[in-house]
Parts: sequence; structure tokens; C-alpha cells
Amino acid sequence: MGLRGRFEGAVDALMQRFSSSLEVDLLMLDEDVEGSMAHARMLGEADILSGDEVEILCDGLARVRDEIRAGEWKPTDEHEDVHMAVEARLIEIVGEVGGKLHTARSRNDQSATDTRLWLKRRLRDLDEALAELVGAILDRVEADGRTLMPGYTHLQRGQPILLGHHLLAHAWALHRDRGRLADALERLDESPLGACAMAGTAFPIDRARTAELLGFARPVPNAMDAVAARDHELEVASNCAIACGHLSRIAEELVLWSGSEFRFARLPDAFATGSSIMPQKRNPDAAELVRGKAARVAGDLTALVTLLRSQPMSYNRDLQESREPLFHAVLTTIDSVRVCTGIFQGLEIDRERFEAELAGDFSLATELADWLASRGVPFREAHGAVGRLVRHCDEAGLRLDGVDPATLAGFHPDLAEAPDDLLAPRAAAERRDSLGGTAWCEVERQLARLRPTLEATTPGKELR
Amino acid sequence: MGLRGRFEGAVDALMQRFSSSLEVDLLMLDEDVEGSMAHARMLGEADILSGDEVEILCDGLARVRDEIRAGEWKPTDEHEDVHMAVEARLIEIVGEVGGKLHTARSRNDQSATDTRLWLKRRLRDLDEALAELVGAILDRVEADGRTLMPGYTHLQRGQPILLGHHLLAHAWALHRDRGRLADALERLDESPLGACAMAGTAFPIDRARTAELLGFARPVPNAMDAVAARDHELEVASNCAIACGHLSRIAEELVLWSGSEFRFARLPDAFATGSSIMPQKRNPDAAELVRGKAARVAGDLTALVTLLRSQPMSYNRDLQESREPLFHAVLTTIDSVRVCTGIFQGLEIDRERFEAELAGDFSLATELADWLASRGVPFREAHGAVGRLVRHCDEAGLRLDGVDPATLAGFHPDLAEAPDDLLAPRAAAERRDSLGGTAWCEVERQLARLRPTLEATTPGKELR
Amino acid sequence: MGLRGRFEGAVDALMQRFSSSLEVDLLMLDEDVEGSMAHARMLGEADILSGDEVEILCDGLARVRDEIRAGEWKPTDEHEDVHMAVEARLIEIVGEVGGKLHTARSRNDQSATDTRLWLKRRLRDLDEALAELVGAILDRVEADGRTLMPGYTHLQRGQPILLGHHLLAHAWALHRDRGRLADALERLDESPLGACAMAGTAFPIDRARTAELLGFARPVPNAMDAVAARDHELEVASNCAIACGHLSRIAEELVLWSGSEFRFARLPDAFATGSSIMPQKRNPDAAELVRGKAARVAGDLTALVTLLRSQPMSYNRDLQESREPLFHAVLTTIDSVRVCTGIFQGLEIDRERFEAELAGDFSLATELADWLASRGVPFREAHGAVGRLVRHCDEAGLRLDGVDPATLAGFHPDLAEAPDDLLAPRAAAERRDSLGGTAWCEVERQLARLRPTLEATTPGKELR
Amino acid sequence: MGLRGRFEGAVDALMQRFSSSLEVDLLMLDEDVEGSMAHARMLGEADILSGDEVEILCDGLARVRDEIRAGEWKPTDEHEDVHMAVEARLIEIVGEVGGKLHTARSRNDQSATDTRLWLKRRLRDLDEALAELVGAILDRVEADGRTLMPGYTHLQRGQPILLGHHLLAHAWALHRDRGRLADALERLDESPLGACAMAGTAFPIDRARTAELLGFARPVPNAMDAVAARDHELEVASNCAIACGHLSRIAEELVLWSGSEFRFARLPDAFATGSSIMPQKRNPDAAELVRGKAARVAGDLTALVTLLRSQPMSYNRDLQESREPLFHAVLTTIDSVRVCTGIFQGLEIDRERFEAELAGDFSLATELADWLASRGVPFREAHGAVGRLVRHCDEAGLRLDGVDPATLAGFHPDLAEAPDDLLAPRAAAERRDSLGGTAWCEVERQLARLRPTLEATTPGKELR
Repeated sequence: MGLRGRFEGAVDALMQRFSSSLEVDLLMLDEDVEGSMAHARMLGEADILSGDEVEILCDGLARVRDEIRAGEWKPTDEHEDVHMAVEARLIEIVGEVGGKLHTARSRNDQSATDTRLWLKRRLRDLDEALAELVGAILDRVEADGRTLMPGYTHLQRGQPILLGHHLLAHAWALHRDRGRLADALERLDESPLGACAMAGTAFPIDRARTAELLGFARPVPNAMDAVAARDHELEVASNCAIACGHLSRIAEELVLWSGSEFRFARLPDAFATGSSIMPQKRNPDAAELVRGKAARVAGDLTALVTLLRSQPMSYNRDLQESREPLFHAVLTTIDSVRVCTGIFQGLEIDRERFEAELAGDFSLATELADWLASRGVPFREAHGAVGRLVRHCDEAGLRLDGVDPATLAGFHPDLAEAPDDLLAPRAAAERRDSLGGTAWCEVERQLARLRPTLEATTPGKELR
Repeated sequence: MGLRGRFEGAVDALMQRFSSSLEVDLLMLDEDVEGSMAHARMLGEADILSGDEVEILCDGLARVRDEIRAGEWKPTDEHEDVHMAVEARLIEIVGEVGGKLHTARSRNDQSATDTRLWLKRRLRDLDEALAELVGAILDRVEADGRTLMPGYTHLQRGQPILLGHHLLAHAWALHRDRGRLADALERLDESPLGACAMAGTAFPIDRARTAELLGFARPVPNAMDAVAARDHELEVASNCAIACGHLSRIAEELVLWSGSEFRFARLPDAFATGSSIMPQKRNPDAAELVRGKAARVAGDLTALVTLLRSQPMSYNRDLQESREPLFHAVLTTIDSVRVCTGIFQGLEIDRERFEAELAGDFSLATELADWLASRGVPFREAHGAVGRLVRHCDEAGLRLDGVDPATLAGFHPDLAEAPDDLLAPRAAAERRDSLGGTAWCEVERQLARLRPTLEATTPGKELR
Repeated sequence: MGLRGRFEGAVDALMQRFSSSLEVDLLMLDEDVEGSMAHARMLGEADILSGDEVEILCDGLARVRDEIRAGEWKPTDEHEDVHMAVEARLIEIVGEVGGKLHTARSRNDQSATDTRLWLKRRLRDLDEALAELVGAILDRVEADGRTLMPGYTHLQRGQPILLGHHLLAHAWALHRDRGRLADALERLDESPLGACAMAGTAFPIDRARTAELLGFARPVPNAMDAVAARDHELEVASNCAIACGHLSRIAEELVLWSGSEFRFARLPDAFATGSSIMPQKRNPDAAELVRGKAARVAGDLTALVTLLRSQPMSYNRDLQESREPLFHAVLTTIDSVRVCTGIFQGLEIDRERFEAELAGDFSLATELADWLASRGVPFREAHGAVGRLVRHCDEAGLRLDGVDPATLAGFHPDLAEAPDDLLAPRAAAERRDSLGGTAWCEVERQLARLRPTLEATTPGKELR
Repeated sequence: MGLRGRFEGAVDALMQRFSSSLEVDLLMLDEDVEGSMAHARMLGEADILSGDEVEILCDGLARVRDEIRAGEWKPTDEHEDVHMAVEARLIEIVGEVGGKLHTARSRNDQSATDTRLWLKRRLRDLDEALAELVGAILDRVEADGRTLMPGYTHLQRGQPILLGHHLLAHAWALHRDRGRLADALERLDESPLGACAMAGTAFPIDRARTAELLGFARPVPNAMDAVAARDHELEVASNCAIACGHLSRIAEELVLWSGSEFRFARLPDAFATGSSIMPQKRNPDAAELVRGKAARVAGDLTALVTLLRSQPMSYNRDLQESREPLFHAVLTTIDSVRVCTGIFQGLEIDRERFEAELAGDFSLATELADWLASRGVPFREAHGAVGRLVRHCDEAGLRLDGVDPATLAGFHPDLAEAPDDLLAPRAAAERRDSLGGTAWCEVERQLARLRPTLEATTPGKELR
């Protein structure tokens, strides 16, 4: 509730609960204590505090952190936020000198600093988790990537492809997610500490020094911006929403592939569940939850966008409400990524599922059209002829490879001369060896490009 | 994790956390136990269970509930949800007969039933809270409603109005919120219990009976709809978002009015806070948080809309993710309403703030234009003449009542004959006595219409 | 740009485009003209205008409307909105008297009135469209409703059901959508006309009379609320988003069912498309677009929620931005509903698709478990035994009806005595005749309840 | 409707309207034609087309573009999208050879290519517009930056600051928006052309060559990813929403500052409007619309997030619905930025408004507290003493500089010794010269850092 020297009334209990951010704040206890220690050290170096005071404060802060971690001392909603809780306990422990820690800072810059520190750490966790997931996908490509399957558009079978080609589409998307995180990280790597309420301070502090002590690349250049900016939070939430969107696409396919009609994949036991009433069920719960969590993170993003619109400078209490959706978005994304990694690591692919079924399948019609086009038939004419042939087969209950040459010639004279392997699905897939095509050589080339990015320290930017 | 008879592997710890809904589920412990008791009683009446079995189950269920409430027995994430937790503990207590409780139901219908029961209760709480808030506003209208203030459009002073007129605009909006809740409540007042997984059951159960025992108006007519429908959740979340939108408008005005420039209102101490660095600050935190919470509930709504799109029938695990945003939306809205009530109850209005300032203010220009129009001058011409007059005053640094008759006549001959009280702000306000206008008689008429709705048992629908 | 008597500068061209709402406004040209006519008539009855003036104004307004409709006169962005365009042209036609029309009203109440009138009409269109869609579904239930299919949960086959049971789940959801629309319509059926800027007027107008002339149930009781309220727009957008959510579930199933793996349904030619490169494709574009449009309407809802948050009273120009998403949401929902109706009218169901495949399918496992339970075996024990049996079959490559009695008895002694038809899928479906179950008698009962609602004048509320 | 060789039925008129994307597509007519030309040239270089064919196609394409631009030929909804329209007209003009253009591509890669090309150009426009806006703010800082004003937190006066300090907070935020755009641009700078439906092609095409011809940095490495990826669209929409959020903060302040209570700023005439009923009004419509548009773009973002969730690979028709919200977001953001630039260029600041009012204002209380702290009084104790002093002044109706030394000493002995200029607002502002503080030297330092970024070719990344 802030410092209430000015007020008479007691704070209403409802209001205490309503305004407390303690629960989510405690996730950044470490960051709060480290921020305070760095602040104390800098104040010492600037002769605003004595060396003894600095030691007392830092020891006290460490003790407060340990007590809270160990559950030996419990903040309550009355402390309102982690900053007030830590300071209150600090003063109990070290006495009056504890009150000096708040020299040349305010809760505005303190809270902004804690959040950025927390984000820097969690985004690195997220990047690592993403790299592991990409790795799990690449492993799966190496293990099962030659499996033949239908390439879908509109959930209709389009052309035969290799599973590896399909999985790599997901890998590249996740690779870009890493790039986005790296950009966001770089942008938010600035220290607000010392901006005070929003105007800076007359104390001779050294903001570059606290930035350095905390591992920030630099201080935020404007004190008002330092306490009021939340675009980095929006950027992070948006990156999480985009990544969760990618995961949800993967999850959707896992649900489809493990369904009774596709029967193409089998989720590992640890990520599937049974039914309370239908004992035969093997439900892809983990994948469904990944889809569902993506919707939750979309909600977090909306909360943040809505929250930040139309707020005048500089700090307004509304901003407190950004933390819960932000942290939820980040932590949920990390979990969702890890769940997908677990699934890919244990996923069983039925390599034979589509092999026979695709032979002569209508999804090979493009082969015929392309082949006609390669002989100089205008593509639209080729397309029309093959379209009529497919229709004929559909009505006659025939597969494409079941039509006799005379009939073929009826649709287009050249069709009768088509080579034998034109309708062999694996040959059709391997034939598509243009850059990024489904041919195995292209799959291998992408593997060779993605593998090294998993070791990159600055993720996602060097390699495209 | 469901029943795992079919599975070999252990459930991954990450997956356990990822898939557990226990925390939010425990909010509906009471509803879960009541639902099970009603189910057991109905099974008894249908001779599917013996009378003894019913008693054992109901006693056991009551004990489980009491143990969990008292913290004597703690469910863990391994139990995954409240249904499994209660059942697991029930079987520990009553033995094998506990396994019979799940006859002719599944978690799908059970979970849907619990949620609807919970919603019915919380929406009644919310309606009560809203009625109290409307009451607090009406009280404020009675106490301070004659206070003269500028009516704003575009945050510019438009015409002088009574505070009562302004506050009633909010009261009517909240009244409609109650109407929406009543409609939603009526629509969701159906029992899914007995729908089982989605197809009903061959057991001779009586769904109308469990509906009756639980106080539902009727059973959901289709078993698949019963487990798959979530539109009532979306409707409730949307109603909460709309209501929070109304609260945010109130909150925005409270922030403005208590700001240094308006100085029109003073929040009660219990709902304002100080600053850690600026001791003179009296921050309208409660109002700012009400604004911020509205953004959070907007996020809850997006989460639900996004979640429910494009899900095939019937139950998918994604649906689990609806509960947290739904419950958050409802509970947050209740809190926000109560905070606003507290503010209105303790709000201090500066009744003199605008009284003098409005005399001769440009916001009386409409008086002149209307008066010209009432004498037959086409409105657009009257508007033009007064516009030029205002511009003249603005440039000359004059107030409207400071212009001499000759100058007035220069803008329009009739203006020189304007009656004396034309530019008296209170008279101007009282003159607007058309239906719903700002005149006190109209304020009183609205008070007389709104007061009785606060006692209504079916809220919001009889009186408009 | 409003009336610019006060301003010197010309309006910037960018600003003209930025601030114009003309394009979307013209959708409510009829409503604007009707509103003005009613206002003129009332002004005449109140002796504010003469009878002649009223006639001149009304004739002029009709001519303006006809000219704009016929494209003979074209408003430009300079007119900014439909109200200013109509008035400008009116004054060109009838001269100075045209300026009297704006007596005792402002654009604030005028625009609010037009929008409500427009909504009343379009929501009736939408309700009609929904009734037709429900009708198309009921027709389909009557035609194909006995078709046997798997009931899905988690997109896994659960229990055999009738297609009619499945389709009715959608019908009930759409039925509730109609109820929501009826509630919204009733709530918004109030006339803002005469509220003027936000304070009412001193002219002796009769707001009840204009309400009556325009077919509104009553005037909005408070003038400030009349111009500032937008909760009815949010409620409508939310109802549209909910309805589109239901349509997207239907669409998702149509995409699945018409896909290469399900092959259960075939979209009518008019609602499917080919591929530019794969001639054999038959893409369910209409269904995919219905899904996609649902996302767009979700965006409209977010725009409105975000827009309305934290606006102080009364009218602010931001509110202009509500119209485009609102109208888009309503018109898109109408189109989406009609597209679904067209699909259902021409949909071909493959009635034989699952008939044979479901015999002995694991989705009958519940039959065994329920049958055990009906003999007194605790449900959880029955569930466990059958789960192990399913696992055995899965590993041995057996169907459930392919296990010999001795083996069955190994999982539970009673299993060997199971009646012959226990695993017949159609018998299993018909056995579920509890209220709302999948048995045909229950399907028929629901048909009998839903059919009469299609004729209801107040939709959706009498029948549940 | 794609190519309908396979279908009998005519396309329903409703469906034609429902599925057409022509209106929004025509915005990228240039990009579509350029993409086709590059494709034709590459096909020529690869000997798939003859040199003559390439010339005929390119000439024809140019003519189609010119005809459509000039309105001489009009595509209709029957053409469905810009690609089909252009091709249809091309074949009318050049005959059968026009059909060869579609060799080795599909609408999937074509549409993805057009959109990326369009985005590259519009994002550069947006970056330029942002640079101009930052420039206009820096100009304003130079012109009015020394103006004294209250620094607000919670819309309460905190500490006296310079307007330049405040405005720079916005400039830095917009600077980061440029950085985000640069990152997004770099990431999306890949050519999908030649990916065909999703599997690549057997034709010996050169995707790197078309990428080069179109100015892309490189081809998308995976053909399925090339047609299915939309994360770059989400990233762009998110960047727009973030930027619009920043603009809405500026707009909110402009509304406040130009309001009757603040009277601190005056919008240029071209960006303000009058009222139809209140001639004295000078409404900040442009700023309100900027706020409102931010809500619209938030809606666009939600539409995209919702749309892209849970779509299985690869292309689904839902994806068509991304274009309208994406383009709306980008174009609206460009307009909003330009409107803000126009406002800042013509904004009039009242430099005297707060100068006198801030002397002795409670917003100087921090000076006292800080001064006490600088003498070794623990900050929390200093804070408490000054808080009690403020309360005393508030009750006694005194300003801070109106308290006599004896009274001061009663709150804290040291207070009586405070230097004379401690409570001079300008001195207080200038005293805050820590890095990023409000002192003019810090404002100047930031100006010197931001100015050069306006000339940067790679915007926003080199300078922080």
C-alpha cells in the first residue's frame, strides 16, 4: 500500500487483496535481492553509503532472501509486493540503516529492473528449450524422415512427400522463434535502475555501474521511459504467442495423426491418457493441452495490449497487472515447448502406414500435369486434362495407375506415353529436388544447416 | 492422468504439472461433492445402487470434502483434477463401493456440471455486488447529485450538468449488466449430469431427477452438447468483460477527477495509496487497478474465444483450459465491483469546484445557439454565429457573459436580447428537462425507477 | 470535420481520410434518413417546426436518400459521415430550412440511433438465417440421422453413435445463439434520439414519440447514457463471436469429414474448390473460410472490448471506430451462417462409411465395462479389466469381437457371459436411451422440440 | 474458385462473395505482376520457356497491370483473387502461352511471395513515417523542451520536470518500434516463390534467381514452410500493435493536455474539430482517433493470433483471412504515425501554464526528503517526516514554501536549514542530472544520440 504516513484510514481488506501482487512477485525474489545489492554497492562506491552500511545491507538482503526461500519468514498481502516485503524484513533484521537502501531509487525503477532481469533469465531458458525441441525434431527427421506420407493442403492429400520434409517446416518455424527471442532480449537488455520515480535523481549515482553489476548491456537512456516502457513485455508476450502458435500447429497434427482415422503416429505413454469411461481410449492429452495453452497465451497477449493502450505517462498502477499475464505467457511457453520435446522424443511413427496406400493415389495427379507441361503443353491445358481424368477415375472407382493407355490418351494424347515410374509415390517425392523441395537430398541439406544453430550462443541470427 | 490400466509408462513429471487443473478445480470442491451426492441418490432411487451404498457414498463424500477443506488431506497434481482427487480419497475411506459412484457418468459430464453449479452461485454473488454498487451510486446521487459540473465530450467541457445526471449514466449501464447476467444464468441453468462421455448411457438413470436435486431448471437436452458446449462460459466471460468495461470507465473518471488538474473528487483513504518517493502523492491506485483488471478480463475473454474456435466434437482436453480464465474473469469482476462500491461509499466530492468556474464559461455557448434557434433562426445559422462569438471571446480573453450587448448584436442581431439567466450555468442545466435530460426532476425520476430494481429477485429484466 | 465556424485552417487531407467514417456509414443510409424523418415529424407535432417545414424536410430527405442510392449524388470524405452528407445535400435541395432539422439533436444521439436501428434489422436477418440453418440441420438429421458413426472425444473413437445425435448437438448450440440474439435485441431496443450532445435539451421535444415512430420499445432513460453507451454493441459482437465459434466447430468437422482419411462427407460442388496445381483436389474452402472468418470476428470483438475500456464520459471520437468491427462482425456472421446452410443442404453423407468398420471396434469397450458394472462389478474394477482386455487385443491385432470366451474370462469371469449383441455397434447406440442419449427415440424427441422453434416470432426463449 | 475442371455445379453467388479476396488483393497488384515477371524470366533462363515466350508474358503482364490500374479492365469476384484475375486477363491478351506462366508454381507460393514483397515496401514506408515522427518530436523538444511541467505518476503531480524529458520518453519508444520493424523486415526477407503447392517441383527452376530478381535476401529454405508460414505476418501485426500502443499513449496525453482542465497544449486546427451543437468546442478528434485506431489494430492482432492457432500443414484456405487484418494493421499504423507527426508539427504548448503554479507545489516534497536523506537521514525516516509535513500543509491550506522554519523544524530538525532554492521547481528539475534524468543537459545528450538515427539506413539498431 505504499508508505502511509499521509493517511489516516486503515486499508480495506478487500483492497489489500485486490492490490497485492505478492504471489507473482515472489517469482522474482532473487532478481529483487540482486537488484538491491547492486544498488547498495553502487551507493557505496559513490560515497552515498559507507562501506559498512553496504556490507550490512547486502548481508541482510541475502538473509531475507534465504528466509523467504526457506519459508522461515512469510510475506503477507499487507506487504503488497516483493519490494516492500524484502525491505520490511530487511529493516527488522538490520535496523534503521535498512531505510537507507531506498535512497535514489523508487519502486517504479526497482520493479522495472526486477522484471527485465527475470525476463533475461527466463528467455534464455526458453531459447534453450526451443533448441532442444528443434534438436528432437531433427533427430526424428534422421530416424523417420524418409517415411512416405501425403503432403496435405486443405487437409486433402496433395502430393506424396517425405515426413522429413514436413517436420523440417516446423523446425524452421521454431528456428525463427529463437531469432525473435534473441532480438527481444537484445532490445530489453537495459537497466532502468536509478531512474527513480521518472525524473532521475540529484544524488550522484552511477547508473552505468548498476547496469554493469547486474549484467545489463547498458542503462535505459531516459528515466521516464525507464519506468513507463512496457513494449518489451508486449514484444515478449507476442513472441510467446507466436511460438505457441507454432506449437499448436504441431499439436494439431499430433492429434490428427494419432487419431483413429490417420493412425500415423503414436504418442509416448507419458504424454497420453486413458478415459474414465472408455477403457480403449488413448487420448493425445498433451497435444490437446499444447493447443489449449496457446489460446491462453493469446489471452495473455490481449490482456497486455489492452492494458498498455492509452496510458498517459509515466507510471500508473494499472501497469502492475502486466506481470501476471507476462509471466504466465513465458512460463507456459517454456512448459509447452518441453512437452513437445518429450512427445517428439518418444513419438512412434508408423512407417508403413501410407507407403502402399499412396501408390496410384489421386495425389499423384500433379505428376501427370507436370509431365505434360514439361513436354510443352500449357500448364492450364495440362491441368484441365488431368482434372477430367481424375474425375473419370473417381466415378469409375479406379486408381490413377489403373487406367489403360487408350483411355489415358482420350484425355490427352501424350498421357499414354507417360513413363512407368511417373506414378510411383516415392519417385514422385524424390523428383521434387528444387531448392527446399521434398527430395531427401534437400532434407539433408536443411539438416546440415539447422544442426549447427543448436550450438549457437546468439541464437537464430547467423544462420538462415 | 485418467485411468491408466492400458499404459505401461509412468507419467512424466512435467506432464503431470502441465495437465493438472487441480488448483483452480479446488474452487469447486463443494459443487463436485454435491454433484456426486445427487448422482448417488438418483442411482439409489433407480435401484442401480442399494440404499446402504448411497448412504456410505454420501457420508464418505461429505468426509472427503471436510478433510480437504480442513487441509487434513491434500490432493496432489498426481490426482490431476478435483474429480479424481475426491474419488481417490473416497475409495480410501469407503473401500470398493466407492468405485460404484462412477456408474453412468464420466468426467466429461461431471466437470461440466460442477462448472455450471459454480457459475450459478458466483453469478448470483456478482449480481448482488452489482446491485450494491448501483445502490452506492444512487446514494451518492442523492447526497451530491445537485453538484454542478461540466458535461464532457471529447474531454472538453460541453454543457453544464448535474453530477447526478452523470452518475446515473453509469448506474443504467450497470443495470444492464445485471440484465445480461440474468439472461446468461437462465440459459446455463441446465444439468449435464448423466450425459456420460457424450452419448448418454444404457443405465436406467433419471437426469431430470439429478437436475432437480442440484437445483437446475432442467437437463441439457442432448448428451453430446452437454459435454461439448462452452458457449455459456463465453457468454459469462463476455458479460464480465462488458461489466469491467463499465467499471473501467468509472475508474478512468475517478483517476481524472482526483488528479491535480481536476481536483473534483477525493478517493477514500482505504482506496488510495502514497508513494515510496513522493510523500505528497495520494494515488488513486484502486481506480487504476480497476482499469487494469478490465484489461485482464479482456484477456480472459480472448483466451476463451480463441480456445473454443474450431474444436471438433465432443470433448477435447483443450477445454480444460477454459476454467482458469473463466473463473478469473468472474472472481475479478466481483472484486472490481466491490472495490468500486467501496470507493463510491467513501468518495468525497468538492461541491464548489466548478460552481463559480462555469459561470460565463464557453460551455454555455449552446444556450445562445439554442435560444436563437428557438426564435426561428435555422440551427446551422445560429451555430455559426455563436461559433464566431466564441472565437472572438477566446482571442479577446473574455468570458461569454463579459461581452457587451452591442458586440453581441454584431454577431447576430437577436443575441443582444438574450434573457439574463441564459448564461447562468445552473439555470442552463435545469432548463434541459426533456426525457432523460440533466434537470433535477429527470434525475429524480430515474432514481425512482432504479431503486426498486435493487430489490428485484430476477434482476434487471422487469424495469427498463 | 464537424462545423468549422471556429477554425481557420483547412483540414489536412490525411486527416480527412483518417477521420472519415463515410464508407461504413453508408450502410445505414436508410436508418439515418428514417431517423431524421421521425425527428422532423416530432418537431412538427411539438410546434417547433411548422407543418410545411416538416413536409419539405421529409420530401427532401427522401430525395437525398434516393439520389445517394442511385449514385446520382456522391458524398465524399469531406462530408466525414453519413449524417453530415445527408444534411449537406438536404440543404442544397431545400435551402435554409434544412438547417432547422438539427434543432434539438446532435450527431451523438443521431449516430447512436442509426446504429441501433441498423442492428435491430440485421439481427433479425441473422436470426432468420440461423433458423434456416437449424432447419437445414434438422432436415439432414431426418435424411441421414440414422447413419452409424464413431462418437469422438479427443478425436479418438469413443462410442458408436447416430449421426443425428451428433448433428443435434450443433443444432442446440445454434438454438442458444438465437436466444442470445433475442436477449440482445430486447436490451438494445431503446431510442437515443433527442438526448442531444449528452444533456438533453430545453426544447419541448417528445422522445417517446420519436421512439414510437421508429419502432423502438422505449427511449433510453438517461441522455448521457444514450450517447455514451456501447455495451449493446459489445454484446452483439460477442454473440456473433460465440455463434461464429459454433460455426467454426461445424466447419472443422466438415473439413475433417471430407478429408482423405475420414471420407465421411462430401461438400456440395458450389462450396468446394479445385487446386491450381493438383487437379484431383476437392478442397473444403467454404468450411475453411468459415473457420477463418470466426477468427476475424474474434478480432472484431477484441477491437471493441479494447476500444471501450477506460473511456470517460460521454462521447469521445474513439467511439466512431466501433462501427466497422461491429458491422463486419454482424455481416460476416450472417454470411457464414448462410454458407453453412448451403453446405448442409447439399452435403452428401457416406452412410456406409463406418457401418462395417465399427463392428468389434475398440470403441465398444465401454459396452463391456458398463455391462460388468450393471452386474454389480464396481465401475472402476470393470474399467480396469476391460482396459487390460483392450490392450491385449491391440497387441495381438484382434478386434474386440474376435476374442474367444476363455480368453475373455481371463480378464474377468463375467465377461464370458456377455450377450451376443453387446458388441453390435448399432445395438450399442440404440441402448443409450437415457434422456439426450444417442438412441434414435431421443433424436426424434429433440427433433420434435426444435422444429416448432423455427416458427417462433420471439426466437429461442420459450422452448428449451 | 480455382480451376473447376473437376466440378459440375456452378459456384453459388454467396460463396463467390464469401471466398473472394479480390478487394484487398488488388492492393498488391504491382507485387503480383512483378512476381510473375521474375518467375517468367527465371523460367526463360532455365530453358523452360523460350525467350520469345518470356517477352510475350512480361509485356502482357505489364499491360494487364496498366489496364487494371487505369480501370480499363475490372476483375470481378468471379476471379476470386488477384492472381487468377491477372492470369485470366493475361490469357485473353496473349493467348494460350499465358497458360505456361503457371509452370512450376502454385497460388500458394505466389500469394506468399506477393504478401512478403508488399510488406517489405510498406514496412519501409512505416519506418520512414516513424523516423519523421521522431524528428517532429525532437524538433518540438528543441523548441519547447525547456518548458516546466509536472511529471505525473498515477496522473498525480510527482516532481517538476522539463517537457523535453517527457517528450523524449515517447521518442525512445518509437525508436524501439523502428528497431522491431528492422528485425521483422530482416526475418521476412525470404522468397517463397517456386515452393509450389508445398513440396517443390521437379522442374529445374532456380529459386535463388527469382529471389534475387525480386530483391529478396534469399529463398525460404523449406517449401512447405514457404507456403504455410505466417509468423512474419503475426510479428508485423504485433509490431504495429505495439507502435499503435505508443501512439495511443501520446494521443491520450494530447487529449488530456488540450482538455479544459489541463489547458497545456493546443492541437493544430487541421487536427481538431468543432461540435455540431456546441460551437465553442475544439475537439482533439485526431488524437482520439489515434487511440481508437490502436484498438482496431489490437483487434487485427487477435484475429491473426486466433486464425493461425492449430492449423495443420500446409496451406489451408483460412489463411486467406490473414491478409485483411494484416494490411489494415500496417496501413492504419502508417496513417496514425503521420497524423501524430502532423499534430506535433503544429502543436502549440503553453509555456507559462505550469511555471508559476509549480512553485511551492507539493510535487516538490521529494526535494525535501532527498535533501534530508543526503544529510544521512535514512530515506524511510525522511519520507515519513515530509509526508507528515505535506499533510499539515494540506489541512492548513498552505503551500510547501509557505511554512515557517519553526514549523518545519517541528517535523524534522534539519528541515529548517534547507537551502533557499530547494523548492524552486526549475532548480529542482535541473538538479536531477543523473543519467537520463530530467536536467536539460541530459535532454541534450539524448537529442544528440537520437538525431543521427533518423538518417540511418538500417533503422534503429546501431544506436541505443
